[in-house]
Amino acid sequence: MKALVYQGPGRKALEDRPKPAIAAPTDAIVKIVKTTICGTDLHILKGDVATCTPGRILGHEGVGIVDEVGSAVTAFRPGDRVIVSCISSCGKCDYCRKGMYSHCVNGGWILGNAIDGTQAEYVRTPFADTSLHRIPAGVDEEALVMLSDILPTGFECGVLNGKVQPGSTVAIIGAGPIGLAALLTAQFFSPAEIIMVDFDENRLEVATRLGATTVINNNDGKAAEKILKMTDGRGVDTAIEAVGVPASFITCEDIVAPGGIIANIGVHGVKADLHLEKLWDRNIAITTRLVDTVTTPMLLKTLQSRKVDPRRLITHRFKLDKILEAYETFGHAAQTNALKVVVEA
Amino acid sequence: MKALVYQGPGRKALEDRPKPAIAAPTDAIVKIVKTTICGTDLHILKGDVATCTPGRILGHEGVGIVDEVGSAVTAFRPGDRVIVSCISSCGKCDYCRKGMYSHCVNGGWILGNAIDGTQAEYVRTPFADTSLHRIPAGVDEEALVMLSDILPTGFECGVLNGKVQPGSTVAIIGAGPIGLAALLTAQFFSPAEIIMVDFDENRLEVATRLGATTVINNNDGKAAEKILKMTDGRGVDTAIEAVGVPASFITCEDIVAPGGIIANIGVHGVKADLHLEKLWDRNIAITTRLVDTVTTPMLLKTLQSRKVDPRRLITHRFKLDKILEAYETFGHAAQTNALKVVVEA
Amino acid sequence: MKALVYQGPGRKALEDRPKPAIAAPTDAIVKIVKTTICGTDLHILKGDVATCTPGRILGHEGVGIVDEVGSAVTAFRPGDRVIVSCISSCGKCDYCRKGMYSHCVNGGWILGNAIDGTQAEYVRTPFADTSLHRIPAGVDEEALVMLSDILPTGFECGVLNGKVQPGSTVAIIGAGPIGLAALLTAQFFSPAEIIMVDFDENRLEVATRLGATTVINNNDGKAAEKILKMTDGRGVDTAIEAVGVPASFITCEDIVAPGGIIANIGVHGVKADLHLEKLWDRNIAITTRLVDTVTTPMLLKTLQSRKVDPRRLITHRFKLDKILEAYETFGHAAQTNALKVVVEA
Amino acid sequence: MKALVYQGPGRKALEDRPKPAIAAPTDAIVKIVKTTICGTDLHILKGDVATCTPGRILGHEGVGIVDEVGSAVTAFRPGDRVIVSCISSCGKCDYCRKGMYSHCVNGGWILGNAIDGTQAEYVRTPFADTSLHRIPAGVDEEALVMLSDILPTGFECGVLNGKVQPGSTVAIIGAGPIGLAALLTAQFFSPAEIIMVDFDENRLEVATRLGATTVINNNDGKAAEKILKMTDGRGVDTAIEAVGVPASFITCEDIVAPGGIIANIGVHGVKADLHLEKLWDRNIAITTRLVDTVTTPMLLKTLQSRKVDPRRLITHRFKLDKILEAYETFGHAAQTNALKVVVEA
Repeated sequence: MKALVYQGPGRKALEDRPKPAIAAPTDAIVKIVKTTICGTDLHILKGDVATCTPGRILGHEGVGIVDEVGSAVTAFRPGDRVIVSCISSCGKCDYCRKGMYSHCVNGGWILGNAIDGTQAEYVRTPFADTSLHRIPAGVDEEALVMLSDILPTGFECGVLNGKVQPGSTVAIIGAGPIGLAALLTAQFFSPAEIIMVDFDENRLEVATRLGATTVINNNDGKAAEKILKMTDGRGVDTAIEAVGVPASFITCEDIVAPGGIIANIGVHGVKADLHLEKLWDRNIAITTRLVDTVTTPMLLKTLQSRKVDPRRLITHRFKLDKILEAYETFGHAAQTNALKVVVEA
Repeated sequence: MKALVYQGPGRKALEDRPKPAIAAPTDAIVKIVKTTICGTDLHILKGDVATCTPGRILGHEGVGIVDEVGSAVTAFRPGDRVIVSCISSCGKCDYCRKGMYSHCVNGGWILGNAIDGTQAEYVRTPFADTSLHRIPAGVDEEALVMLSDILPTGFECGVLNGKVQPGSTVAIIGAGPIGLAALLTAQFFSPAEIIMVDFDENRLEVATRLGATTVINNNDGKAAEKILKMTDGRGVDTAIEAVGVPASFITCEDIVAPGGIIANIGVHGVKADLHLEKLWDRNIAITTRLVDTVTTPMLLKTLQSRKVDPRRLITHRFKLDKILEAYETFGHAAQTNALKVVVEA
Repeated sequence: MKALVYQGPGRKALEDRPKPAIAAPTDAIVKIVKTTICGTDLHILKGDVATCTPGRILGHEGVGIVDEVGSAVTAFRPGDRVIVSCISSCGKCDYCRKGMYSHCVNGGWILGNAIDGTQAEYVRTPFADTSLHRIPAGVDEEALVMLSDILPTGFECGVLNGKVQPGSTVAIIGAGPIGLAALLTAQFFSPAEIIMVDFDENRLEVATRLGATTVINNNDGKAAEKILKMTDGRGVDTAIEAVGVPASFITCEDIVAPGGIIANIGVHGVKADLHLEKLWDRNIAITTRLVDTVTTPMLLKTLQSRKVDPRRLITHRFKLDKILEAYETFGHAAQTNALKVVVEA
Repeated sequence: MKALVYQGPGRKALEDRPKPAIAAPTDAIVKIVKTTICGTDLHILKGDVATCTPGRILGHEGVGIVDEVGSAVTAFRPGDRVIVSCISSCGKCDYCRKGMYSHCVNGGWILGNAIDGTQAEYVRTPFADTSLHRIPAGVDEEALVMLSDILPTGFECGVLNGKVQPGSTVAIIGAGPIGLAALLTAQFFSPAEIIMVDFDENRLEVATRLGATTVINNNDGKAAEKILKMTDGRGVDTAIEAVGVPASFITCEDIVAPGGIIANIGVHGVKADLHLEKLWDRNIAITTRLVDTVTTPMLLKTLQSRKVDPRRLITHRFKLDKILEAYETFGHAAQTNALKVVVEA
């Protein structure tokens, strides 16, 4: 089968690989229908993710059709249409029992990382019963690709951790796919204001279309100042960091109101300054989270009932044999205006 | 009347001052029976608290007897025995209505800071109806001095923010009065382990007596390492910072388990490094808080029902005219083994 | 001034009354601009509310202009435009400090009940600082009349107590003004389904316009059966009782899913059967609540940001001197299709 | 093997039965070391539990040693010492994923009910990985028998649902084993008062020894009146129903304070009157729950750290071949003063 393989820092190729086989009784083999590329895949390609070694098939998102199941799989059968969750959850360990699947001691984020992933014709998914989600009849499958990772990530790490509430004021720093996923799902809770901050005019335009009430281009470095002015110096109830660099985290520190929350989504490579000398008495919370995908069933219901349309995040579509082109497009988003690119297997 | 007055950085004196008078209809004048000295008073004396100007009577803790009330005070009358809360709460502003009295736009921490305080024979307390607490008959008043600040601070900022739970593992960095207040009140929730970390052997001995299950002297800088070893590498569910310096905050970052909480109590003068490169995917929360004293009624009930005995924090007692000696004793805690010193007016 | 006065069971009149005067330093006199009639006013007129004695001016809702304030009022001045909350909150008692204003030991629901109310040219409002809400510039005042009672009632007692969530299934039994207020505010949380049940076709049509996903006319008594069928026998996550009779409460018992909540809003005059033999092992919760109006500031923000338009509940408008006609219209809703009638003073 | 078998209403016998065998890959066979008898077993024997048919081996509690595991079991191996949870949880269904194991669509309470139970030398436990709990070294196994059902039941259904808090006032109606389990675990949260109500003087004496602050013998039917008097007419914050009859539920309705909670544990056979005409405006919650055993790991930690000693509930001990005698003793508790009887296999 065709598969996109990481060959070491800076190198990838579309290779021919054997179709995966059941390795444990809880596995399923899923024939991929659609997959996509994540910012994390670009991190891997830079050599930044030590757990992912050369030879790995990338990809941790996708929808497909169950092709084969291990002997212990009871919830799925060949032919079932499924969402593949980016997080593999054994369902048995202490973390899984607490709904913290991201820290599953037997799984977690392993797909397209420690084991082969979804950017291929087939994928082996461990713990199928507790890591796949059945696709209801009549739901658009392209939209569901967004439920593997990006929508639960924006929702869990940004919106739920950030305790967005009716009438509250939210700022999202970073209008990339993750920030926009937070923007879409923040609206489930009817905040009064959602302020999006980015440097890219196109992304800010998209943000406006997707429901931002104010957009700020931070090219002048004055986003924090402007947000404080807009809020009469008080700041925002929820500040969502969706970039992963110290500067944007510090913007969050600058704009969080007393009693507010900084919800970090960004993948950080270096430390940031925490200005405790200003924050110690501000009654704030800072949260971090790797997505647990525990809300995927809830998100599926919101999607079915048309409370959210994640297809609005999709800008480009490719066939699997053009996946290198898809990577080019996604990797040069500033030029291509790419958000999520869907790859059809 | 006699009063302890801040005279500028490094200088204080016991002065003769006029008895305070009602200035607003919501004021009360309280005759102080017992007061105490807080670490924050030492900060003021170093010149570190800009809002507190020379000439200020210090002190934000105490119990006393209502001497006079303003025309709008309805809940108290002269002769009532009361706890003076360190936080003045107007009861009307948005923050007060949300239980966040620390950020009261008309009050907050002003006593012994922006207005004259309790280390005197009398004090004027603003917003008396919502900032004083009636003392029930038969309760030891010395114990209640601990309810002005230190017990709610340890409880709200450390224990409640830290979500201490039955069976959980707690570490408290700093065994000074605030850390010990957190230790006492953490036991309301029956955690399995409470690990106390300090550099002072005497304080660690006190911690053991007050309920710590493990004490660690961090003179060798290996507290984090030891705590990780004790918890099989997992770390603690709740890490409470009760010092206020970067090193102890970073210890908390090092020992917090996935899904855990760092609850900051310490007053910080400088920033700390936040190792987001390690923490971004750990599903943790970091909280800060200036005490709201919203739990004072609850704490009063726990004290009345003998669930906690905060007198165990009191090591020394002085008369008001010996308050300079009390400051000496409190200020040289390493030599005197002082925790809380009670000053009788 | 003109005022609508309760004269004993079955009797009311538009009388001439003296303008009220400040009676306590925390009072305000408010010149009423618009008021409305509540179902509770009809209860009073039937003689069902013992605390309301003949001679009482009715009404506990309205917007107006502050005319005069007592000496202890600091947050409002004559000329301020305000919403009058149906609940008077002293801001000082234990219940008020916990946000449970409905049980304020000095206030609670007293307006148009134990003291004269808002269906008049002027009203005396106790505890003005903590019972009035400033009207922001540019907000439609007619919409704000709905913030005195009906919107916070539907929201607090129905939606918040019922823990409506994104993707959840909600049933509201009763499509009168209160049920419709719950319908409007339930949408803040993006549930997948909102099923409205009533006997009145017009009200069900209104419900459909206001966002119900399914409406059921229960004339055949088969609402519970139909709802169970729609939910594959599982039932609803949230069942909101908005009528106040045993039959509708029992419908809620019949349709609540395991893990679900029955949130009672209805004012009940008699007991209901609680089928514990069916419910003891269903992991459900039943909640009751008299509105606290603690969410009025939040609702005001949702209204300002156009997340909700409560004017959609207003069907009729009258001048104060036609208030008897307004009562006729409101009291014969089945014929007039009245929901909320606004009375302009 | 020997097994206690239900033979139809009113009839039971100690029979010889074949040792159970693995029936599904997720099963384990556990050699029972100690088991016990539950009030529910008596209900079954009366013929009150329709799902339990004649021929069934009773018992849903116990500790033992894993004898054999199915091919899909990964967390346990023969020789492991385990607690058998009364609830079988598949770990995969929607309810299990939400921590509501009691409603597991593949399991739930089936042991000693729909399938053979633990009052035998061996038991087959379905979903072993997610329904057994490993026994840590050095923990008393007799104490752990209380973790199969009674301790999590008292804790989850009574204490957690009842939101017991530091300083709060709790009443527990019923001082049988379940009420006493609630009493023991309520103390995790340091309430100020725990009032126990029963008709049996011995049980009330036990309650006093186990931590009740007040005990009331309700032989005169005046428990509610006395509790209201003790609480200055206000009532209790948490009322726990631990009997399962209308009268005790109504006592809870009579004594719950505004803002309080009635947490039902009792197994009810008939409906109760719900006095909504008194409760509709009291801001209360009523909860029901079949134990989920989701807190068993937490309880195990509290037991290991000596925060609770559930052996204090054990009054009698028998060998398995004397289990009929054990039933006699347990079934005549008023005469024998039996609470929990341990049966050694």
